[in-house]
Amino acid sequence: MNTIGIDVGGTNIKAVLISPTGEILRRASLPTEAQRGRDVVIGIIHRGIELLVGDVATGDLGGIGIGVPGSIDFDHGTVLHPPNLPGWDEVPLVALMEERWKVPVLLDNDANCAALGEANFGAGQEVSHFIGITLGTGVGSGIIINREIYHGARGYAGEFGHASIDYNGPLCACGNRGCIEAYVGNSYLIANAKQRLAAHPESVLYAMATDDATLTPKDISDASAAGDPVATRILYDVGCTLGIAISNAANLMDIPTFIIGGGVSAAGKPLFDGIRETANTRVLKVHRGGIAILPAALGNDAGVMGAASLLA
Amino acid sequence: MNTIGIDVGGTNIKAVLISPTGEILRRASLPTEAQRGRDVVIGIIHRGIELLVGDVATGDLGGIGIGVPGSIDFDHGTVLHPPNLPGWDEVPLVALMEERWKVPVLLDNDANCAALGEANFGAGQEVSHFIGITLGTGVGSGIIINREIYHGARGYAGEFGHASIDYNGPLCACGNRGCIEAYVGNSYLIANAKQRLAAHPESVLYAMATDDATLTPKDISDASAAGDPVATRILYDVGCTLGIAISNAANLMDIPTFIIGGGVSAAGKPLFDGIRETANTRVLKVHRGGIAILPAALGNDAGVMGAASLLA
Repeated sequence: MNTIGIDVGGTNIKAVLISPTGEILRRASLPTEAQRGRDVVIGIIHRGIELLVGDVATGDLGGIGIGVPGSIDFDHGTVLHPPNLPGWDEVPLVALMEERWKVPVLLDNDANCAALGEANFGAGQEVSHFIGITLGTGVGSGIIINREIYHGARGYAGEFGHASIDYNGPLCACGNRGCIEAYVGNSYLIANAKQRLAAHPESVLYAMATDDATLTPKDISDASAAGDPVATRILYDVGCTLGIAISNAANLMDIPTFIIGGGVSAAGKPLFDGIRETANTRVLKVHRGGIAILPAALGNDAGVMGAASLLA
Repeated sequence: MNTIGIDVGGTNIKAVLISPTGEILRRASLPTEAQRGRDVVIGIIHRGIELLVGDVATGDLGGIGIGVPGSIDFDHGTVLHPPNLPGWDEVPLVALMEERWKVPVLLDNDANCAALGEANFGAGQEVSHFIGITLGTGVGSGIIINREIYHGARGYAGEFGHASIDYNGPLCACGNRGCIEAYVGNSYLIANAKQRLAAHPESVLYAMATDDATLTPKDISDASAAGDPVATRILYDVGCTLGIAISNAANLMDIPTFIIGGGVSAAGKPLFDGIRETANTRVLKVHRGGIAILPAALGNDAGVMGAASLLA
């Protein structure tokens, strides 16, 4: 049966109606209006579903899966304190949605949904175990074990972004040092890049190295694609830091596949070269040369498609 | 039914017959004679079982579980290239044992068996998810998820000793840098301790800081227990390095419990203080204060008892 996937972001709520094979039949996107509080946001989620199926869910609808940006009490289907949704202390979202729509509803973390989307419809379709990593402001990730989301003891698993690769390394917003997010999260990545560019007047990006200049990951990718060797080296080195964290996760969990998406992953070859070479050099001998680093295939649809497949 | 557990070590083969509740009914230990090759060693395994049950397994015996120091092809019950057992290229140990003893036989890695032993009969009986860590020449570990051994994609999971906490850190025998084993494995630990002791003539261990003096982890524990503050600080700092790696694993896998055994874990309080304080400071806020560090309860019996419970 067809299912609905919802991705509740801090900025937009996205919804899709998909077939069991992952064909997107309809889609909707509405501003979250998070600052207006939980009841308004829940109303917008309902509105998104109405745009897909009308006022009443028909017998064709297998259920609704929802990805939310925060922690979940899986036993009660409750969203717990999502940091980007003011006023959502503990929201029994499963109960609220099932009452309105009379179909089964499942929740999961948005990063877990993105990984599940890649597992079911994207780059992970042939892979039993992988970690999906989404690069952006933060580093989101979800762990897939035997083709299911791995939740850990209490549902908090998958914080790959807060695996430290240097206990004396740069301070991370979480309070720890050397977390991978403190190297490849957008603001950290840009700050590092500016620092390096300041020593390279030959780079086309040199003018953007000043403190008050805007520099984006896309600027760096574009400069690399146009042949700027400094930009290429910056992206390669970002890949190397990711490769270090990947080798640690591969050793600990015997997970030999990593699917990389989000912002800076669009940089392509230099980033992926850095990841692949470092990960495959640093892992234990039994894994060496066997760590596969795949680009994500679904782009921004990974989260909603994964949410829709929670019911599968 | 009663089961037999075997631990095939590089030096000794240990065997126990245990009841379903973990009571050790009989035990045997024989030299492995590893250098005499696989057929001799397999004969010694048979001899160990004979010492427990006589020539013929009776209907009272539920099966035999075997822990081996190396990788396993689980589909075929084959031991693959154990580094400490010369001549064991690919040994179909399950088939060989089932043919002789006519009971079900299961294999697993020895570190996984030790973790399973603690889960079923030791410090992990009330815990759903934990990592069992055995400190010694190397750092052995096994991951328990939902009370079962977690094997990963191909059976290699659990290499906690080769999680790096500093990508520029000390070189590990595996080729990577900053692996936790390169801080707390016995030879690394002793080398670090000697270096520190050389600057502390007030320590009772100062005379053992010279290059050619023998210093053991037990010497350091004993000195600490007798009130030597330098020894206590060394053990505390070893605990801190373990705590860093533990916080990384807790963040990634949402595993909030760690059971620590083996050699230097006998040092007790200073080591455990270092682990607990560091792990609970560095983890993400959701885990802070909630990471439990438990001493292992079964000592050297963890491996054989876990092996015996593979059949459960």
